[in-house]
Amino acid sequence: MNDAELRDLLARTFPFWERMSEADKDTFCRSSFDVKFKKGATIHDGNECTGIIIVRTGCLRLYILSDEGKEITLYRLFPGDMCMLSASCVLNAITFDVFVDCEESSQCIVVGGCAYESLSERMSEAKIFALEVALSRFSDVMWIMQQILFMKMDKRLAIFLLDEVAKSGGDTITLTHEQIAKYMGSAREVVSRMLKTFASDGLVEVSRKGIRILDKKRLRDLSL
Amino acid sequence: MNDAELRDLLARTFPFWERMSEADKDTFCRSSFDVKFKKGATIHDGNECTGIIIVRTGCLRLYILSDEGKEITLYRLFPGDMCMLSASCVLNAITFDVFVDCEESSQCIVVGGCAYESLSERMSEAKIFALEVALSRFSDVMWIMQQILFMKMDKRLAIFLLDEVAKSGGDTITLTHEQIAKYMGSAREVVSRMLKTFASDGLVEVSRKGIRILDKKRLRDLSL
Repeated sequence: MNDAELRDLLARTFPFWERMSEADKDTFCRSSFDVKFKKGATIHDGNECTGIIIVRTGCLRLYILSDEGKEITLYRLFPGDMCMLSASCVLNAITFDVFVDCEESSQCIVVGGCAYESLSERMSEAKIFALEVALSRFSDVMWIMQQILFMKMDKRLAIFLLDEVAKSGGDTITLTHEQIAKYMGSAREVVSRMLKTFASDGLVEVSRKGIRILDKKRLRDLSL
Repeated sequence: MNDAELRDLLARTFPFWERMSEADKDTFCRSSFDVKFKKGATIHDGNECTGIIIVRTGCLRLYILSDEGKEITLYRLFPGDMCMLSASCVLNAITFDVFVDCEESSQCIVVGGCAYESLSERMSEAKIFALEVALSRFSDVMWIMQQILFMKMDKRLAIFLLDEVAKSGGDTITLTHEQIAKYMGSAREVVSRMLKTFASDGLVEVSRKGIRILDKKRLRDLSL
């Protein structure tokens, strides 16, 4: 990635880019590294400040780890996504350890945490952006927590989808998320989010044409 | 609470108070209400923006709720603590619903969400403060999540019982098994079974009067 491409990516990623001074932009570029991660690599292990990771290709997985080695996946990062929780020196309020693995070989840009932290001391917009990005993940994590602890929605949606394809005889459901939510007595946002999870797990494919069942067996296992 | 006392409380609560204009301070005071909540009252039910709750006396409990009515306590708020998650209009990034109950009769100051939101549009410090307070709770919630998902039930129950007697100062806990399960995000059956084990080990005595701690030392060993 050359300098012009890097600047373009940073401009698309950080909404305050245009209001940064030229000197700050230069520092930012010098603190940004083009990194390739191999499938299976551990990118961030909770301790030091790895920096802000911008995913260009591939897929990263963010998770927490128990003392006994048990993992819980919090969410995945796809091209265009950004990992702020790995920049521990930017976020003092975050005191828990997260781990980031490379799930599929990925090309990323890593922006040094120190450069960002020093910018955000002078530019409140940068500080607010970092906090808001981190906080939006709070909602994702709460959702996962509710899934795990209340364990209901995934099972219910799996049953619903299997029922629908059994009824129609095909492998595609043409209902809107809104309609599915209505049928299940849930909210559209909840259904959309769950379908997104199912899609990233390879269970279904969500497109404008509808929801196509890709792995009926695993969906059935989920419904039990 | 008179105007001078209110201003004093707000000044102690919001670190940016001194840098607010007099007009903003006046608006803030007019948007702040002295409210008494009765034990057991639901103060915030996830939907509308209740505002920022500053606890003066008593105790509030923040929790999430499943469709079936199962609760998980995220944390408690004591005198001096502030609830930011109830100010949904200040925090757009928070998309999950939290509930706040009054656990012990409480006196609170509720600062209107609109007044805060309008201030934080003009004053980035106020925006940053709200985000940081909310984000610091992210860490609390992650800790609870790890407790629930990773920790063994006996250890969790030991910690819970010790916390309860430490709070009340006695040696007896008068909560029902159902209530303990609710607070711990567990099931009543699990709590009852575990208490039975504790009782047969001589750690506690379970009677209609409640749960009496018999061996604090061994309970503490279990909690480590």
